[in-house]
Amino acid sequence: MNVMVRGKVRHFRTVEFDPASNAVVLIEQRLLPHRFHRVRTRSHPETASAIRDMVVRGAGAIGATAAYGMAQGARAFRGNGLRTFARHLDQVQEILATARPTAVDPVNALREVRKALSKGGTVAEQQDLALEAAHRFANRNVEECRAIGRWGAHLIRDGMTVLTHCNAGWLAFVDIGTATAPMYQARSEGRDFTVLCDETRPRCQGATLTAWELAQQGVRHAVIADNAAGSLMQQGRVDLVIVGTDRVLGRSGHVVNKIGTYTKAVLAHRHGVPFYVAAPESTLDWTTKDWRAIPIEERSPDEVSGAWGAGPGGRSRYVRIANPGSPALNPGFDVTPPELVTGIITPTGIVKPSALLQIRNG
Amino acid sequence: MNVMVRGKVRHFRTVEFDPASNAVVLIEQRLLPHRFHRVRTRSHPETASAIRDMVVRGAGAIGATAAYGMAQGARAFRGNGLRTFARHLDQVQEILATARPTAVDPVNALREVRKALSKGGTVAEQQDLALEAAHRFANRNVEECRAIGRWGAHLIRDGMTVLTHCNAGWLAFVDIGTATAPMYQARSEGRDFTVLCDETRPRCQGATLTAWELAQQGVRHAVIADNAAGSLMQQGRVDLVIVGTDRVLGRSGHVVNKIGTYTKAVLAHRHGVPFYVAAPESTLDWTTKDWRAIPIEERSPDEVSGAWGAGPGGRSRYVRIANPGSPALNPGFDVTPPELVTGIITPTGIVKPSALLQIRNG
Repeated sequence: MNVMVRGKVRHFRTVEFDPASNAVVLIEQRLLPHRFHRVRTRSHPETASAIRDMVVRGAGAIGATAAYGMAQGARAFRGNGLRTFARHLDQVQEILATARPTAVDPVNALREVRKALSKGGTVAEQQDLALEAAHRFANRNVEECRAIGRWGAHLIRDGMTVLTHCNAGWLAFVDIGTATAPMYQARSEGRDFTVLCDETRPRCQGATLTAWELAQQGVRHAVIADNAAGSLMQQGRVDLVIVGTDRVLGRSGHVVNKIGTYTKAVLAHRHGVPFYVAAPESTLDWTTKDWRAIPIEERSPDEVSGAWGAGPGGRSRYVRIANPGSPALNPGFDVTPPELVTGIITPTGIVKPSALLQIRNG
Repeated sequence: MNVMVRGKVRHFRTVEFDPASNAVVLIEQRLLPHRFHRVRTRSHPETASAIRDMVVRGAGAIGATAAYGMAQGARAFRGNGLRTFARHLDQVQEILATARPTAVDPVNALREVRKALSKGGTVAEQQDLALEAAHRFANRNVEECRAIGRWGAHLIRDGMTVLTHCNAGWLAFVDIGTATAPMYQARSEGRDFTVLCDETRPRCQGATLTAWELAQQGVRHAVIADNAAGSLMQQGRVDLVIVGTDRVLGRSGHVVNKIGTYTKAVLAHRHGVPFYVAAPESTLDWTTKDWRAIPIEERSPDEVSGAWGAGPGGRSRYVRIANPGSPALNPGFDVTPPELVTGIITPTGIVKPSALLQIRNG
């Protein structure tokens, strides 16, 4: 998407690749929103570190980063022996796959690149095929987000106020994002609307990343405390909710997303505000039957006991807010039941959560 | 309530008076929870400054501070002329009443002290009566909170988890508090329970003041992000909600309280969790008929765009969190309709919000 850099509008993807220097080029997300800076990782171990240290975050974005890291590792190999090359590739794949051990997108991305390159007859051919496969993976991610945008844009009409939670924006994917895609599409079609960004405590991805993204794209928006949405809905000041998701149970329609999503769904339901979930293919879970079986990650209490604010040089600085010594509970995600979800915006259309299984079965 | 000072448990009220030095003694609330420190204001202009600068905050606490400030100002007068004294008292009253112009408690407190002292035949008598009246005002505040505690304590049973929002604790009153009173009473009766403190963005009074208070009283508690309560209720991990209030409409039962209260009431209703509001006499509004007529204070966007954390010397330091340049909406309060409120805990008993008018009418 567009970013204003030294007074000029430039277009960037969250993850890019420079073949000449064999480098992955990433937006340094830990400096946002206080500073925009891109970094180049010049070897696959550096790329793995960028994933591990959260220079880049978000399921789609780390998937593409891993794919490019695999191509980068393949292209760094000097020699002609296919068996030595294969052992080298095993090591590259291992280091990238374990950078964020619980994430599934890098694992799938690496498998896809590895499979594609295996069709090459020589090391050089395999190296070329690896980069092609990485590009294909990244482009498919962009196309999926674009398709979600086209379907979802119909929901946004002139004069509307749209609420979103957390960051399911282009920074979490390769470009465009999921929950933000309908907004960017509607904006490009000239529609005039306002987005409310829940700040999304404890990590405040709404106040930092989503607000930054929307500002760069010229989408009118305002940040609100997570506490404010209920009252605003009660006053009729919210027309539509669009959020992203980490996982949708295809069999039941339950939606797993950042903590606080469920609360917004309950409020939207009470006030008759349509509640939509933008879901790319990779989030659909066809295996899990019972939502109560989904493990909810309990994260560090430090996230609740303090916050990261602007520090020197744009780097975030942690400040303690809560009473020292008071414990904190910090569930990272919650589960929204299908009866509170108006529709799931998928790349192939908008469906009721109960109808997901039907589209899969054709 | 009790505070641990240098390893010893000591008892303090939020607002006290030292007749020997004619000083009001206040807990410096701007340093909490990072540092406990008491300050003495040695003249009524100093006391007014403490109210204005929020050394002391909370309706009941600033009412009592104003009452003591009036007595302090009266006692500082040197002379015997009743008419000169009356002009002096006018000035004292004016400076204290305008310290927080929208607050009603100081105005009522000052009127009460002024009326009481007017019964004295000499300046000396009036000075004594002023201090007696201020003590009476503060003690009545404590008695009201104690009565709320006795009624409300019956709601808390062993093993329960009780959720509260913001700070309606002893720091906001002279002692004991309103929403916290049932907790302190139940604790003193030996019951074993856990309190969840909503952090209460944007000002985080739950994470700072309520958590600090509960820790000092040895009440088991944990801080949660405002986003977490919905999911916890969905999992059956909240048994009871008790909040305070800034204003209850006696005619309709609508409850005005800190932003986010309405959301918790909606969630509690969905999950069958009893939702109680602790309301001292001064919060009952018998005049306003339509809740939509209540003005909702729109506060500074800086509160949403950042946070106050622990800085050097225990003083709070503001850090910017949100994207610079992104606007923020910051409504300070919301309105909870009576159908979501299980009961109002008043000093004279627990009633349904629809029955408030009946108790008033006897």
